[in-house]
Amino acid sequence: MNTLVEGGTIVTMSDRGVIQDGAIAIQEDRIIEVGKSSELKRKYRGYAKIEAEGRVVIPGLINTHHHAAMSLLRGYADDVDLKTWLEKWVWPLEKHMDGRDIYVGALLTAIESIKGGTTTVNTMYHYSPEYNEARAFADAGLRGVIGHVCFSWRKEHDIQTLKKLAATWHGKEGGRLRVSVDPHAPYTVDPEYMIQLKTLSKELNQQYGLKDAPIIWHLHLAETSDETEKIKAAFNVPVKGGAVEYLDALGVLSGNVVAAHCVHLTPRDIQILKERQVKVVHNPISNLKLSAGISPLPRLIENKVQVSLGTDSSCSNNSSDMFEVMKITALLHKGVTGNPTVLPAEKVLQMATLDGAKSLKWQNEIGSIEEGKKADLAIVNFKKPHLRPLYNEVSHLVYSTKSSDVETVIINGEVVMEDRTVKTVNVDEVLEKVDKVKSDLLTRTQND
Amino acid sequence: MNTLVEGGTIVTMSDRGVIQDGAIAIQEDRIIEVGKSSELKRKYRGYAKIEAEGRVVIPGLINTHHHAAMSLLRGYADDVDLKTWLEKWVWPLEKHMDGRDIYVGALLTAIESIKGGTTTVNTMYHYSPEYNEARAFADAGLRGVIGHVCFSWRKEHDIQTLKKLAATWHGKEGGRLRVSVDPHAPYTVDPEYMIQLKTLSKELNQQYGLKDAPIIWHLHLAETSDETEKIKAAFNVPVKGGAVEYLDALGVLSGNVVAAHCVHLTPRDIQILKERQVKVVHNPISNLKLSAGISPLPRLIENKVQVSLGTDSSCSNNSSDMFEVMKITALLHKGVTGNPTVLPAEKVLQMATLDGAKSLKWQNEIGSIEEGKKADLAIVNFKKPHLRPLYNEVSHLVYSTKSSDVETVIINGEVVMEDRTVKTVNVDEVLEKVDKVKSDLLTRTQND
Repeated sequence: MNTLVEGGTIVTMSDRGVIQDGAIAIQEDRIIEVGKSSELKRKYRGYAKIEAEGRVVIPGLINTHHHAAMSLLRGYADDVDLKTWLEKWVWPLEKHMDGRDIYVGALLTAIESIKGGTTTVNTMYHYSPEYNEARAFADAGLRGVIGHVCFSWRKEHDIQTLKKLAATWHGKEGGRLRVSVDPHAPYTVDPEYMIQLKTLSKELNQQYGLKDAPIIWHLHLAETSDETEKIKAAFNVPVKGGAVEYLDALGVLSGNVVAAHCVHLTPRDIQILKERQVKVVHNPISNLKLSAGISPLPRLIENKVQVSLGTDSSCSNNSSDMFEVMKITALLHKGVTGNPTVLPAEKVLQMATLDGAKSLKWQNEIGSIEEGKKADLAIVNFKKPHLRPLYNEVSHLVYSTKSSDVETVIINGEVVMEDRTVKTVNVDEVLEKVDKVKSDLLTRTQND
Repeated sequence: MNTLVEGGTIVTMSDRGVIQDGAIAIQEDRIIEVGKSSELKRKYRGYAKIEAEGRVVIPGLINTHHHAAMSLLRGYADDVDLKTWLEKWVWPLEKHMDGRDIYVGALLTAIESIKGGTTTVNTMYHYSPEYNEARAFADAGLRGVIGHVCFSWRKEHDIQTLKKLAATWHGKEGGRLRVSVDPHAPYTVDPEYMIQLKTLSKELNQQYGLKDAPIIWHLHLAETSDETEKIKAAFNVPVKGGAVEYLDALGVLSGNVVAAHCVHLTPRDIQILKERQVKVVHNPISNLKLSAGISPLPRLIENKVQVSLGTDSSCSNNSSDMFEVMKITALLHKGVTGNPTVLPAEKVLQMATLDGAKSLKWQNEIGSIEEGKKADLAIVNFKKPHLRPLYNEVSHLVYSTKSSDVETVIINGEVVMEDRTVKTVNVDEVLEKVDKVKSDLLTRTQND
């Protein structure tokens, strides 16, 4: 379908900046022109119109670290330490989740993401055939990178699963879905297996990788202060320096690696992240909630490390809300560094859009509103008391906008939400399924 | 009017805890019974019904530090240091604001507050006759404490103004409005004037104070690390210890004092805050945004200092959203202390409700859902994707609920918002006025 979004303020995140009374012409799944409304209205008369007067149009937000299925555990475990959180709460419930449960959880996250203007989600979870996160994103119309998380204790299963995942989903659904190889963390994936996964990734890329669409890595890295101790204890290996340096010595770091957290870093670690062009994901809400620590984000940015933003799972957040993540990112580092000029609104919005696209190696197609890119847009209604008066759109987007202000969302040229109604799936049915899965999981866990 | 809120989950914040399928009977402005729906429905047949199935009913949130009129400056100045923020941005615009502008700004904050489930706001600003924050809150149906901010450079004006404020508004509007004496800060109010204001407060209380409704103090205290230096520089006085100890030596601290911020405290300061029963307001978003620092909140609570929550002004936040403040409070101190068990959801919700009421010396009438208290309620719609599944209402209220989930708000027994429509004022008209005031202020400021 061909669509003209007209009369809105376009925050392009390209060198064209903010266009007042702007318009965006969309042909099928791509943006074919961005300009002034007056001009584009004449030029694209036959196009279906989306009126954006009083609205601000932004590139769809990109959430670069999530475990989509874990929305099923939203609010299940709070205010406890990580060990209790995992061992007493999360794992005992998770072990009862099957593919269908994972599908339902990921569908819930997809709906929540779309309702909050997020159009791309990078998710790490257990992949299973037939029902899985990929199918959920496909059904919801969300763009995403779907991983399968790998552990030393199930190598054979992981390798077979990754092959299936890549064969089934990489580049599928009109290019909306890509896949990744997800070594869980340096302390759960032994050094040999880490290297084996690197080799496997190369093979998968040769077989299934597409032009400008590599199969990337997605892992947890340097999340807690004791990570190097955990590596030593798990594999009885010497660890010189930080966890990043340890991984680099294995030869597995590159520009195709998305590393979530990176909270506890040595100066050498930061240098390596930069040199290897590793893509770091900052998850401030999760890091605070689990007391993992506070990322040295301003120092990473100063050192030209590429950082994007993520929510992490709904069990450690407890939302999939990128507007919240933007606001907390802008606030937290001002408070921690004592410098109110760090992480200005413009930079934070860039981290949630264009930098997110770069992290996923998807910047040729998403992350900004530009001719030739895919049409992934969020239209935000600014006619709200909490968004008045208006001095600066970007300030409001980071400091004042709520996910509930997002009115219309377009992904790959398709209107997936209109006037806050998600059009791709029956939301009420999904919520009923979520309640059912929750009851079943609780019953099974209590019967253990 | 008599109303029965029925079929909801009532989070009472009293020793009755959470009542599933509960009901609240309201006669005029007061709660007359709280119990099970099945029972109250039989008992109060003639009452107007508010159906709360799938909803969670909470005491209206209490925002104990705000400058309501400053919503006019929302997003006007971000990402700059405090000196630049004040001297280059805030003050040059504020000096052009008159009573009518203040009224419009406070009305905007009142609307935003109501839409976010906040039913009481403690605000400090310049009071002027006829049009002012008190009139705005009166018109919007909001409950609040209205102060007049005092500075050494305008003593005579302040004293006359405080008398007018107390005479006109204390205990008025069906008891919805109270007033306060607001010495701006220890570094802008000289020691002699501070003592003079204490004496004046006593006189005002004798003349206008009501049973269980004193005229309180509201000031800024220990916001930045250089506050004692600023006091010394301003008044050429010796300052022994911290800013709290300094004020205590003047004999002005008591249980009637609401002190915003209290970020930079000596151990002796904390002891004094406890002994004098000073009511501290934690404003995490503002403190982070302006890089004021991070309050030692867990230590204050350990030491049994009474702490409630505030947004601070919409120029340093940039929202009047107490749900955001709750989430950030619960997160921030876990991250900073490295202890994920501090500030659990239950405590944070208490800080935003009952503890807020105690701060304002209003706990006999508000802060919990109990028989005999005023009917100040927020009804939150939990039938939302981001609030599913549901394991624990209080967790969701702090970690997952958004202000936009608030559906209906009752203040003093009056339904001030229904299905998200504010019923007391014409919101569109207010927004038009806000835009006009903003344009006028910008023009006047640019012409300086």
